[in-house]
Amino acid sequence: MTQLQPQEVRDVAAIDLGSNSFHMVVARVVEQNLQLVSRHKQRVHLASGLDAQKNLDHAAIERGLECLAMFAERLQGFSPSNVRIAATHTLRQANNAHIFLQRAREVLPFPIEIIPGVEEARLIYLGVAHTQPESNSKLVVDIGGGSTEMIIGQAFKPELINSKQMGCVSYTNQFFANGKLSNKNFAKATLAAEQKLESISGHYRKLGWEIAFGSSGTIKAIREVLIGLGYDDGIITLKRLDKLSEKLCEWQTIEEIELTGLTPERKPVFAAGVAILSAIFKALKISNMHFSQGALREGLLFEMEDGFKRSDIRMRTTEALASKHLVDLEHAARIKGQAKEFLQQLHGELGIKANSELFDLLEWSALLHEVGLSISLQAFHRHSAYILRHTYMPGFNQEQQRVLAMLVRFQRKALKLHELEEMSLFKKRHIVDLIRILRLSILVNVQRNDDPLPPLSVSINGDQWTLTSSDSEWLDHNKLLHADLVTEQEYWRNAGWSLNF
Amino acid sequence: MTQLQPQEVRDVAAIDLGSNSFHMVVARVVEQNLQLVSRHKQRVHLASGLDAQKNLDHAAIERGLECLAMFAERLQGFSPSNVRIAATHTLRQANNAHIFLQRAREVLPFPIEIIPGVEEARLIYLGVAHTQPESNSKLVVDIGGGSTEMIIGQAFKPELINSKQMGCVSYTNQFFANGKLSNKNFAKATLAAEQKLESISGHYRKLGWEIAFGSSGTIKAIREVLIGLGYDDGIITLKRLDKLSEKLCEWQTIEEIELTGLTPERKPVFAAGVAILSAIFKALKISNMHFSQGALREGLLFEMEDGFKRSDIRMRTTEALASKHLVDLEHAARIKGQAKEFLQQLHGELGIKANSELFDLLEWSALLHEVGLSISLQAFHRHSAYILRHTYMPGFNQEQQRVLAMLVRFQRKALKLHELEEMSLFKKRHIVDLIRILRLSILVNVQRNDDPLPPLSVSINGDQWTLTSSDSEWLDHNKLLHADLVTEQEYWRNAGWSLNF
Repeated sequence: MTQLQPQEVRDVAAIDLGSNSFHMVVARVVEQNLQLVSRHKQRVHLASGLDAQKNLDHAAIERGLECLAMFAERLQGFSPSNVRIAATHTLRQANNAHIFLQRAREVLPFPIEIIPGVEEARLIYLGVAHTQPESNSKLVVDIGGGSTEMIIGQAFKPELINSKQMGCVSYTNQFFANGKLSNKNFAKATLAAEQKLESISGHYRKLGWEIAFGSSGTIKAIREVLIGLGYDDGIITLKRLDKLSEKLCEWQTIEEIELTGLTPERKPVFAAGVAILSAIFKALKISNMHFSQGALREGLLFEMEDGFKRSDIRMRTTEALASKHLVDLEHAARIKGQAKEFLQQLHGELGIKANSELFDLLEWSALLHEVGLSISLQAFHRHSAYILRHTYMPGFNQEQQRVLAMLVRFQRKALKLHELEEMSLFKKRHIVDLIRILRLSILVNVQRNDDPLPPLSVSINGDQWTLTSSDSEWLDHNKLLHADLVTEQEYWRNAGWSLNF
Repeated sequence: MTQLQPQEVRDVAAIDLGSNSFHMVVARVVEQNLQLVSRHKQRVHLASGLDAQKNLDHAAIERGLECLAMFAERLQGFSPSNVRIAATHTLRQANNAHIFLQRAREVLPFPIEIIPGVEEARLIYLGVAHTQPESNSKLVVDIGGGSTEMIIGQAFKPELINSKQMGCVSYTNQFFANGKLSNKNFAKATLAAEQKLESISGHYRKLGWEIAFGSSGTIKAIREVLIGLGYDDGIITLKRLDKLSEKLCEWQTIEEIELTGLTPERKPVFAAGVAILSAIFKALKISNMHFSQGALREGLLFEMEDGFKRSDIRMRTTEALASKHLVDLEHAARIKGQAKEFLQQLHGELGIKANSELFDLLEWSALLHEVGLSISLQAFHRHSAYILRHTYMPGFNQEQQRVLAMLVRFQRKALKLHELEEMSLFKKRHIVDLIRILRLSILVNVQRNDDPLPPLSVSINGDQWTLTSSDSEWLDHNKLLHADLVTEQEYWRNAGWSLNF
C-alpha cells in the first residue's frame, strides 16, 4: 500500500560574496526539483576597498553590510539549514575579514563561509554542470574580481581544478591604474595572465573537453558586447576577442569606452576582463566558448538539494584523505566511536545541538587524526594539522578545515592553548570541548587493541570533567592507563582545566 | 684475459658522539671486506651538561672537544671520504649545537652530521645486522644516554623503526635525581618508560622476531652484571631483570651500589638503564635477549663499504618519496638534467668540487621539488619544504634534509632570504648558488613539454649571472619565457642578486 505523502516544499537561498558583486539566488525545492524563484545582485566593489596592507577599509565594509542587510529582508523566516553563504577572493585576502564577518552576523543571521579558491572552482563547476546538463565533458571558466577559476569535468564530477589569483578588479588596478588604455597596457595584462597559466595550461590541453562555458559577470559582459558588435550568436572566439581588444585600444582612456551592451558599472573593469579571457583562450587553445547562467551561487544551491548533499562530498573527501595517508582505519574507528559516544553524553550540557556540524567535525577529526604519520611519527599531531590545514578538501570551507587542523593539533602532548585560533563560525569553547573529548577518546584507546573497554562516561561540573567507568576496578587492572591519565591530568592542569577519574 | 689488479687497501673510521660517551672505530677495507683495527671510547657525559634551556654548558663542550682532539690524532692523514661522524640525542637537543660543531671543526677536520633518531635506529640495526649475520629476523634494542632505539628487521633491511626520547642519563635525572634508590623511584621510571612504548608496542608484538639483540653500553653493562650474579650465559630475561631490580632496590642510594661487573663510570646511570630495559621487556614481551657488539658506529662503517653505499640508500629514499607523492617524473627529469648541466658548467667558478655531495643534493631537490603538490598547488613550494624537512628519509642527516627543504622552498616566487637558515656542513653561499641553478632550471622548463630547449649556458661575473642561448633569437620566439625571465630578474634584484639574459 503506497501512502500519499504531503508534498514537501522548502525555500533555499545561496549568497556569493564576490570581489566585485554580491549575488543571491532563492529557489524552491519541490520533490527534489529546484525551481529558481529570484536572483538579486548588487555591486559592492569590495576588492577596491582593500588597501596595501590587505585591510578592507571602512567604506567597503559598510557597502557590503548594506547589501547584506537588504538580502536579510528577503531571507526573513528562512532556517539556517536552508541558506548557504560563501565568500571568495577578497575576503580570503583581507586581514580584517573577521571584523567584516562579525558585523555581518549582526545584520544577516546566517553563517558566512570563506571558501578556498579550489573549492570555489568546484562549486562553480557544479553550478554550470547543473545548468548545462547537455554535454558530457566541459571546460568551465569563471573570471571574478580577484580570482579566476578553470575546471574541466565530466557530468557532475570535476576532474581538473584550478583557481588563480588574477581577476578583472586586481588586473585593472595593476595594469590600467591610470585609467589609460593602450596597446602596451593591454598586451602587458594579457602577457601577465598568460604567465599565470603557463605551468598549468598543458594539463588542460592534454585532458581536453567537448564544450567550453564561461560563467559570471566578466564573461557575460564580453558576450553582450560581442552581440552588440553584431556577433548575434553570442559565441566567444579568439578572433572576436582580438577584434574587441583592437577596438578597446582605440580609446585613450577607460572612461571613454562606448560599447553597446556594456553597462556603466562593468566599464571600469571590462578591458582587464577581456585581457584575461584572451590569455586563457591562447593558453588553453580554446576555439569557442558559450555563456552559462550557472555560477558559484547555483553550485551552492544545488548542494543543498538532497541528491547532492554536501555532507556526502565531505564524507568522500575525508575517506579519500584517510586512504591516501594510509590511516589505520580500525584504530580510527575505535576513536571515532568513543568520541561520538562521549559527545552524545555531553552535548546537552555543553550547549552543542544534537547532530550539529560539530558532531561531524569531531568524527572526521577522529578519522583523520593520524594522517600526519605519513610524514613522521615524531610530532605527528603537528603534521596532521599541517596536512588538514593545507590540503584541498572538497566540500570544506576554510574554517572547517582550520577546526579539523586544531582538533588534531591538540590531540596529544602539552596543551599550548595560545596556538588555538579565533573563529567566526564556531565558538572557541565548543572547540575546546571537542579537543577534550578527542583527547580522552584517544587516551583510553592508546593500547590500540580490540579488547573491549568497559562502558565509560564523562560528567561535567563547571569546568571540571570526570571520567568514570561502570567497572569501578577498571583502572586498578590497568596501571599503565592509570599512569597515562595522571599524565593527562597534569596537561589539563597546566592548561587551567581539571580532569578527575 | 683477466688483469691482475693491485689489492686496494684503505682505512676507514666512524665516530659516534653519544649522550654519554664518544666512540670511534677504525677499520681496514681489504677487497670489500671490513677488518676492525681499533676501538676507542671516552666517557664525555655530554647530556649532563645540558641545562634547563637546553644549552650545552662550557664544561661539557670542553670535555667533548678534548675527546675529539684525541680522536683527531688517530685520524691524521685520513681522507674525509673515509671518515663518518654522527651525533645523536644530546646534540639533536642542544640549542647551541652549532657552536659545538664550529669548534669541533677546528680540532677535527671532518664533517659532523647530526642524525635524526630514526636514522640512528637504522644505522644501529645495520651495525648489528652486519655483526650478527646468523639470524633472519631480528629485534634490536639500543638504550643510549638520551634516546632508545628499537628496530625489527630481516637480514640487512629494517622493517619497523622507532626512536623514543628516553635514555639512561635523562631517566637518571628525572627519577633518581636525588641519588636515592627505592622501589618507588624504580617503579616510577619503569612505568614512565612503559607509557612511552604503549602506542607502539602492539606493532612490535604483531610483527614479531626470531632473535632479540641489545647493543651499546647500557645493555652491555646489564649483561656483565648478570654474569657477575652467576648467569654465565649472559642472556637477559625478564625474570633476571626483575631479580636485578630487586637487588638494586636493596641499596638506599646509587652511590652504594656494589655489583660485580659494574664499572664506576656506568654506576650513576645503571639503575635507570635497568628500569628502561625492564619496561621494554614487558611492553614488547621479549623472552630473552643477547648482546651484540655491533652498534651505531659499526652501522656508519658498513655504509662506507662499497656494497652498502649510503648513496644507494639515499637514491632509494628519494625515489620512494617521489613515488609516494606521485611526482611527475618526466618533468622532474627535465629539471634534474638542466640543473646538473648548469652545475657542471659553473662548479669550478663557484668553488664546488666536481661530483661532490652538492651535486647529489641539487639533483635530489630537482627530483623532489614538487612533492608538495600532493598537499595543494597553492604555495606548493612551502609544502614541499615541509615534507622534506619532516619526513623520515633514510640515509640523510638533519642538515642534508634541511638543505633539500631550503632548495625546494626557494624554487619559485619571491626570495625571502631571511628564511634561509644557517648551516654547519655546507657553505651558505653554495646553497644560494644551488637555489639560483634550480630556479633557472625550473623556469626554462615552465611549459612542461618535451619541445627541446636550445643549449643554454650560464656565465658568472662576480655576483652577476647571465643566461645565454646558442640560439640568439630564442627569446624572440618565446615571448612568454621572456616575460618569465623579466619577472625572475625582478625577484633576483629584490634579493640583491643580478640576472641578465
